[in-house]
Amino acid sequence: MTAPRLTTTLDGPLPDLARRMLDAMPSIEHWLRAQWPKRATPFYSSVDLRNSGFQLAPVDTNLFPAGFNNLNPEFEALCVQATTAVIEKINPAVARVLLVPENHTRNTFYLQSVVALQRILRHAGLIVRIGSLRPDVTAATDIELPGGDKLRLEPLERSGKRLGVRGFDPDVVLLNHDLSDGLPEILRNLEQVVLPPLHAGWFMRRKANHFAAYRDAAAECARLLGIDPWLISPYFEQCGRIDFNERQDQENLAGYVSKCLDDIRAKYKEYGIEQEPFVIVKPDAGTYGMGIMTVRDPGQVRNLNRERRKHMGMVKGHIAVHDVLVQEGVYTVESVSDATAEPVVYMIDRFAVGGFYRVHPGRGWDENLNGPGSHFVPLAIEKPCYSAAPGRPPNLFFYAYGVIARLALVAAAIEIERTAEAFGAGPAHPELVVSANKTPA
Amino acid sequence: MTAPRLTTTLDGPLPDLARRMLDAMPSIEHWLRAQWPKRATPFYSSVDLRNSGFQLAPVDTNLFPAGFNNLNPEFEALCVQATTAVIEKINPAVARVLLVPENHTRNTFYLQSVVALQRILRHAGLIVRIGSLRPDVTAATDIELPGGDKLRLEPLERSGKRLGVRGFDPDVVLLNHDLSDGLPEILRNLEQVVLPPLHAGWFMRRKANHFAAYRDAAAECARLLGIDPWLISPYFEQCGRIDFNERQDQENLAGYVSKCLDDIRAKYKEYGIEQEPFVIVKPDAGTYGMGIMTVRDPGQVRNLNRERRKHMGMVKGHIAVHDVLVQEGVYTVESVSDATAEPVVYMIDRFAVGGFYRVHPGRGWDENLNGPGSHFVPLAIEKPCYSAAPGRPPNLFFYAYGVIARLALVAAAIEIERTAEAFGAGPAHPELVVSANKTPA
Repeated sequence: MTAPRLTTTLDGPLPDLARRMLDAMPSIEHWLRAQWPKRATPFYSSVDLRNSGFQLAPVDTNLFPAGFNNLNPEFEALCVQATTAVIEKINPAVARVLLVPENHTRNTFYLQSVVALQRILRHAGLIVRIGSLRPDVTAATDIELPGGDKLRLEPLERSGKRLGVRGFDPDVVLLNHDLSDGLPEILRNLEQVVLPPLHAGWFMRRKANHFAAYRDAAAECARLLGIDPWLISPYFEQCGRIDFNERQDQENLAGYVSKCLDDIRAKYKEYGIEQEPFVIVKPDAGTYGMGIMTVRDPGQVRNLNRERRKHMGMVKGHIAVHDVLVQEGVYTVESVSDATAEPVVYMIDRFAVGGFYRVHPGRGWDENLNGPGSHFVPLAIEKPCYSAAPGRPPNLFFYAYGVIARLALVAAAIEIERTAEAFGAGPAHPELVVSANKTPA
Repeated sequence: MTAPRLTTTLDGPLPDLARRMLDAMPSIEHWLRAQWPKRATPFYSSVDLRNSGFQLAPVDTNLFPAGFNNLNPEFEALCVQATTAVIEKINPAVARVLLVPENHTRNTFYLQSVVALQRILRHAGLIVRIGSLRPDVTAATDIELPGGDKLRLEPLERSGKRLGVRGFDPDVVLLNHDLSDGLPEILRNLEQVVLPPLHAGWFMRRKANHFAAYRDAAAECARLLGIDPWLISPYFEQCGRIDFNERQDQENLAGYVSKCLDDIRAKYKEYGIEQEPFVIVKPDAGTYGMGIMTVRDPGQVRNLNRERRKHMGMVKGHIAVHDVLVQEGVYTVESVSDATAEPVVYMIDRFAVGGFYRVHPGRGWDENLNGPGSHFVPLAIEKPCYSAAPGRPPNLFFYAYGVIARLALVAAAIEIERTAEAFGAGPAHPELVVSANKTPA
């Protein structure tokens, strides 16, 4: 397996940020190791990163990751090992897992990710069944996927405070459904452990909360590195509720955009960066690439045409945008075969287990790449590239990607702790209840 | 990475033992997960396995493994992840590790393993220095290795109850020296954690103790699998002190050989196995391939010629053989490029992190392969091969190798607990003492 061909900065002189992180590896790992015992880290996550050469930052942290099928299959062992370690931590007695996926039944890419996830869990020695929230799944439904994989969806069955499928009483409910549309009644008040906790769903999460927690974690890491936190923690503005049809709301949004652009401009000046600053305007909740705008001038959000407004008003699940986030735009200097690319890192609990480049030939280096037309090139994210191998220099950022992704994970853990209070869920990890007399068949 | 080409049974119909293990994976993993929290598993280990198609068993468990350079470098990430998990378990505050290697300074194969081990520890974010027990290492000594790697050996320095090298006060002392010649004074009564514990050294270990503990662990696993324990736990006889120059000792040894051969013959008859039984006669302590005999008839140990006696009387470190073990011989059906092969599995704590085939073109399928002339072919030991990939069928035994190796690890943990009492060392894992105010540079 070789790293994809990378261009510009990465082929030039050593990028200072990546080199600093490699040099500070012992302090960074020491600091990170100290974080996990005091936090309830989410079961899994994926983090979209942007690397402009001078800045490296997370732009989205997904707590219900899909895309497991895009990881390098050679590295499945890393996922399996991490899963084993996490199950041990939760409770070594856990044997049965109920996986609750998104409701897509025709999105074969997503279903292949569910297959890959199920395979990881099974190879960690767990018994896995898949329970669907879809009302039209009323009996066991087998789906055949291109490539020959098969998936069986079963209707969820609730009995008292326990959730399962017919003949299967799991110890753990693992959500791969992001709860964008709210919290289904059938998932409430379960006595089983639910991973990640319900309040990690998008009905509760706000990106601004995440990035506020990230800002704190990044500040501590920047102190270890002796760098300006801005290099790993870009600006953002939480705009609150925005109705794109209202002139006053547009004006308020333009104000946030203006503030953020001014802040970036000051930093660019400080560092002698000649690129034009830009911001990303996006929904404060939800995962998909809809409703995301690249903005270089506040005027752009003042004079949205009808089509654009309609676009901005809609996100996944057809919910009108209420809360909006303005986020400093980070250029991507990475490309794969001349197409714009950004790295995505996958984690199981505290372990970075793989990643890929999201590649979009049709989009520019200042645009969101998560949308139709993108494809994926797996990478060996775990290789820290401590020393250059003979021949082609390695991508020194590989280690840095893992660091920033794990900083985002620390942030997600803090964010979930804080949301737990709002949700009234009590501690994020309730004591695991494993039903008695369970020995796997 | 592809699996090495395997012959005979493995290309034939599915071997029943491997299939049974794959089918019982959830119960096996569940049982194994329950073992680790109650045991102090050794920091690392390697297990030599023999697979005859009908039997699969460990023949040697090494608690000071060399050969890290023979693992597939693509899988270094697995080693790093496992190391991270173990350090977290010991104490997340651990930052500095002192590695104490064997005294070989001209064995470049061994030194390359030390380099590989050091790299794994460093990539897990630890600060590593190497302290040598050699009296002639009186100043920092740099060794250049073929391939360009460099290694720095430094003289050990003891200060009160702490061991280190100049300017380096480690939190943990990691032994890669098997202490065959006894326990050096400089290692006694340290306040730092020593991994593995001192009494795991060959000055205390006896293979018979290991296999006695293994027999118990294997019996539990066999119960889960619903199989005869003999299929994974061959016979052995602890013969005690043998002087090969004494006729009476030879006679006693012949008696043990005879007993073991009779036991095997009965099992072969029960299963309709037509091969000729054999036993391995070897020292009960020590690691190297010297002094190991394949015996098919008790007469062979009664009439040893002078040359052979001399050979049997010597093992690594030039200690006369005192304690002898007679072990049921397990044929190997595995071959790589027509040469006889046996799998070796590496573990870091409870995680199987890699392995290779030890291949010896000059030796037969009933001989010890660990000796001059052998070479190594890395394998993807962690792939459980749950379902056959398109094309060539996978080696179904890969998962089984990991299971048997981890059973041997359970045995090693039990063995070390038992030896701790004899050694008077108290609990196998003393409370870790990390010196105050330690933040890595």
